[in-house]
Amino acid sequence: MTKKAFQDYYPEETSYCYGCGRNNDDGLHLKSYWDENSEESIAVYTPRPEHMALPGYVYGGLIASIIDCHGTGTAAAAAYRAAGRDMGTKPDLRFVTGKLSVKYLRPTPLGMPLTLKGKVAEQKERKIIITQELYANDELCATGEVIAILLPEGAMPSK
Amino acid sequence: MTKKAFQDYYPEETSYCYGCGRNNDDGLHLKSYWDENSEESIAVYTPRPEHMALPGYVYGGLIASIIDCHGTGTAAAAAYRAAGRDMGTKPDLRFVTGKLSVKYLRPTPLGMPLTLKGKVAEQKERKIIITQELYANDELCATGEVIAILLPEGAMPSK
Repeated sequence: MTKKAFQDYYPEETSYCYGCGRNNDDGLHLKSYWDENSEESIAVYTPRPEHMALPGYVYGGLIASIIDCHGTGTAAAAAYRAAGRDMGTKPDLRFVTGKLSVKYLRPTPLGMPLTLKGKVAEQKERKIIITQELYANDELCATGEVIAILLPEGAMPSK
Repeated sequence: MTKKAFQDYYPEETSYCYGCGRNNDDGLHLKSYWDENSEESIAVYTPRPEHMALPGYVYGGLIASIIDCHGTGTAAAAAYRAAGRDMGTKPDLRFVTGKLSVKYLRPTPLGMPLTLKGKVAEQKERKIIITQELYANDELCATGEVIAILLPEGAMPSK
């Protein structure tokens, strides 16, 4: 995809996140988009070989990490959408995680792209709940939920 | 501490975990122990500079990751203890995560050791629930819960 991801619209000073910040050289660089064929958001990530739990299977902490960033990214996009505003316009709508939960349904195979699908389950101005499904080879391997909290403008870092 | 951590007793073939495996060269190498002064387990981990959420604060996915590994490690140690067996003896008691949840209570400062404290909240032979608290500078920053599931012996990888 050549279109910009949700995370590409984040302000420079909030783009150092290990999971999804374009300014974090060592990070995962997760990219989230609206799915053009549904109301869902989508992200595809291929874990690195070292992101292993047991040999052949993806580390649960990595799965939690990409669910975390896909959740806050989807929350930001949903907030702009609800406000009828383009992503990246001021004032910034940037979300952080209040609660993260992940159910591991089966071992997730390592060595292939994983697809995350996100849905807005509940939306208020300052609190958005995103539910997610994680697939490998079209098989559901994990589900997750992120309670995302709007970062108050005064709490925006200036780096 | 010079004593062996829970993770140091894991069988070689299940010691490649990104979060805590001694055989994963690129991993986090989390080490968990029983606290000598309480019934709790303890782990201390200093995030790397790149493990950032917003500048100055620890990435939530990293917090979830260390809670994950401290949870399964504590579950293994608790299972051996309940069986009256030394860790590392056969048959192996190695746990994987069925469900992980984390509440982020306040931003966790980056650049200092984080202390995880774990408690056995519920224990059955094949399912152990570990609740956790994460502290920075003695301030409670996050809480977590891991539902750990005993890895069936037939599911042990042979690498």
